[in-house]
Amino acid sequence: MPVPEPGYGVENLPYGIVRFGDGSPRAAVRVGDYAIDLDALGLQSVPDGTFAQPSLNAFIALGRGAWTEVREELVRFIEEGLHAEHATAVGHVESLLPIEVGDYVDFYASIEHASNVGRMFRPDAEPLLPNWKHLPVGYHGRAGTVVVSGTPIRRPMGQRPPAEPGGAPTFGPEPRLDIELELGFVCGDGPALGTPIDANDAREHLFGCVLVNDWSARAIQRWEYVPLGPFLGKSFATSISPWIVPFDALEPYLVDGPEQDPAPLDYLRVDAPSALDLPLEVILNDTVVSRTNASHLYWNAAQMLAHMTVNGATVRAGDLFASGTISGPDRGSLGSLLELSWGGRDTIETTRGERTFLEDGDTVVLRGGHGLVSMGEVSGTVVSAEG
Amino acid sequence: MPVPEPGYGVENLPYGIVRFGDGSPRAAVRVGDYAIDLDALGLQSVPDGTFAQPSLNAFIALGRGAWTEVREELVRFIEEGLHAEHATAVGHVESLLPIEVGDYVDFYASIEHASNVGRMFRPDAEPLLPNWKHLPVGYHGRAGTVVVSGTPIRRPMGQRPPAEPGGAPTFGPEPRLDIELELGFVCGDGPALGTPIDANDAREHLFGCVLVNDWSARAIQRWEYVPLGPFLGKSFATSISPWIVPFDALEPYLVDGPEQDPAPLDYLRVDAPSALDLPLEVILNDTVVSRTNASHLYWNAAQMLAHMTVNGATVRAGDLFASGTISGPDRGSLGSLLELSWGGRDTIETTRGERTFLEDGDTVVLRGGHGLVSMGEVSGTVVSAEG
Repeated sequence: MPVPEPGYGVENLPYGIVRFGDGSPRAAVRVGDYAIDLDALGLQSVPDGTFAQPSLNAFIALGRGAWTEVREELVRFIEEGLHAEHATAVGHVESLLPIEVGDYVDFYASIEHASNVGRMFRPDAEPLLPNWKHLPVGYHGRAGTVVVSGTPIRRPMGQRPPAEPGGAPTFGPEPRLDIELELGFVCGDGPALGTPIDANDAREHLFGCVLVNDWSARAIQRWEYVPLGPFLGKSFATSISPWIVPFDALEPYLVDGPEQDPAPLDYLRVDAPSALDLPLEVILNDTVVSRTNASHLYWNAAQMLAHMTVNGATVRAGDLFASGTISGPDRGSLGSLLELSWGGRDTIETTRGERTFLEDGDTVVLRGGHGLVSMGEVSGTVVSAEG
Repeated sequence: MPVPEPGYGVENLPYGIVRFGDGSPRAAVRVGDYAIDLDALGLQSVPDGTFAQPSLNAFIALGRGAWTEVREELVRFIEEGLHAEHATAVGHVESLLPIEVGDYVDFYASIEHASNVGRMFRPDAEPLLPNWKHLPVGYHGRAGTVVVSGTPIRRPMGQRPPAEPGGAPTFGPEPRLDIELELGFVCGDGPALGTPIDANDAREHLFGCVLVNDWSARAIQRWEYVPLGPFLGKSFATSISPWIVPFDALEPYLVDGPEQDPAPLDYLRVDAPSALDLPLEVILNDTVVSRTNASHLYWNAAQMLAHMTVNGATVRAGDLFASGTISGPDRGSLGSLLELSWGGRDTIETTRGERTFLEDGDTVVLRGGHGLVSMGEVSGTVVSAEG
């Protein structure tokens, strides 16, 4: 067995669900370019059968104590080489959706993204709405259409805005199909209904991270979204990377985030560094069109989780929340085509020609991570509305 | 065994999940004032064990063919009196949440409700936004906080709007806690990702109906909802009635709905009568404060389901979508306290005193149905934010 691939050594150990050969889906941990059959390893720190399931939810539901024990046990197994006989090259396994998603929440935590959208759609007003700096704005997305990397993305049909005010909408394929580069957080179980999670305890309930492509139909969204927010413009597909990177593996990259002024309310204050220094890139048709970093996010995951539960809402093992589009301050660090093309005004060079929004056949890959801890990638290719 | 209670004869046969004595939760059908143990009946039309589960999802996933066969088999069993030995008085069983909710979508389908809200919040503009008559506006709610009737409702904490524009929000208990009277629709599995459901085929995917109280925190909602819609103002709890009334039982009450002008786009056209004539009432502290009817809804369930999937989004067995607040044209037929008190301006008489919004200790019961087919009720009592 070769030396582990950079980014997938014992510093990472991401979890996924794969199909080994023609067996049933089961849990795996990635070491280098290999998927290790977790059930076959016979770890002592979880009940029998925890990993012989088609999602990681049962493992995640065991809680932070078990997450840490399994990680420590895995390091020992790998250092002794005991994993090798249960390893299959990742190229020879099929990666499946790693979790059964309970609730999916999408935030709007990048100040650059929210400001850019504000400038485009409300050019005569303040770019940020009055609530934006007081709370992490978020909404619920569709859990049932969260799909694993590689799933083809069919261009959605739907109602597009009338050509003139007071006119009738038209029906057809979405003309402004877009991506959003996001970071997703997979949750463990939270406290009972009625009890919020303290921002300083958020780590106890954060299992791991994935890359998220929140595919967006801009014309459908623009027509439908008042007054109750995005619906069909987002619900046709949300792609996530197949290997969930444990939050523990990201600990070395926790940094101070942007200064928050005004200071947030008490329930949103976090004592420790909680932003993530994670380099990210957007690749459209083999062309890197954006390089950014998750550390630009104004609101961090601990604040998002505290906010999401401050009203007493429960969080369940397998719930997913995402950051919203991650944009940086520069033109080359924006996380959506809406911003990169500035609302369709400018073109973006790719190997398949110039683009504003996505054309059928285009492939988008989001990548991220450090030399020692790779976040892997999430990819998707657009297929036509008809086919 | 006494004659079946009106509303729960063979015309209805609603399904629930109950705990008989100290056994594990399992499926039941309600006949009169009795819960019948479905697994014990030994029906031929479903695989063994379908009903010995803590949710109805496995049964629902069998699809319309099985729903019809089970219903027919049940009628035969009941007519022969074979159910009696598996019957327990409903007062002696604990009713639990009948489904594991996949995705929960809330629509905004009452023209009277949407117009009333528009008049209150945008007094100088058209009450309805430009998209409203072209599509059933909807958004995703939190599936994990859908709870069964009787669950105490803790007043949520959260951010309330600043006293003046540009000011800071305050934090504390929601001062304007409200209800929304809604009808909920429980779905069966739909087609694969990428394939919409035709409005005229919607019946194939509609398993049944429940009453829904979409508890709403108006101050939290008003501050948070721009631009991505309601979030914490709704996600603390959504109560549903425990007995799911089969859509088949409601067939006699399908009627033509309000005229739709302008005519909706083709994908929203339904040939058969698809509105539901269902009398409904809101009871606050033992006082009936509103009487209305689901037939007032501008958009019907078939149109909601067609719209929800027109972009290719999947629907899974156990998904739930609700109508949004059902208000009629008269002051006494409004489905929220926001409307009944006209934004807190007017008081509502109840046995516990005058109300605008809900006080701690208040109990709300929503009821509905006909003499032959009762929808049952959904109730909830408000507990203080602290306790």
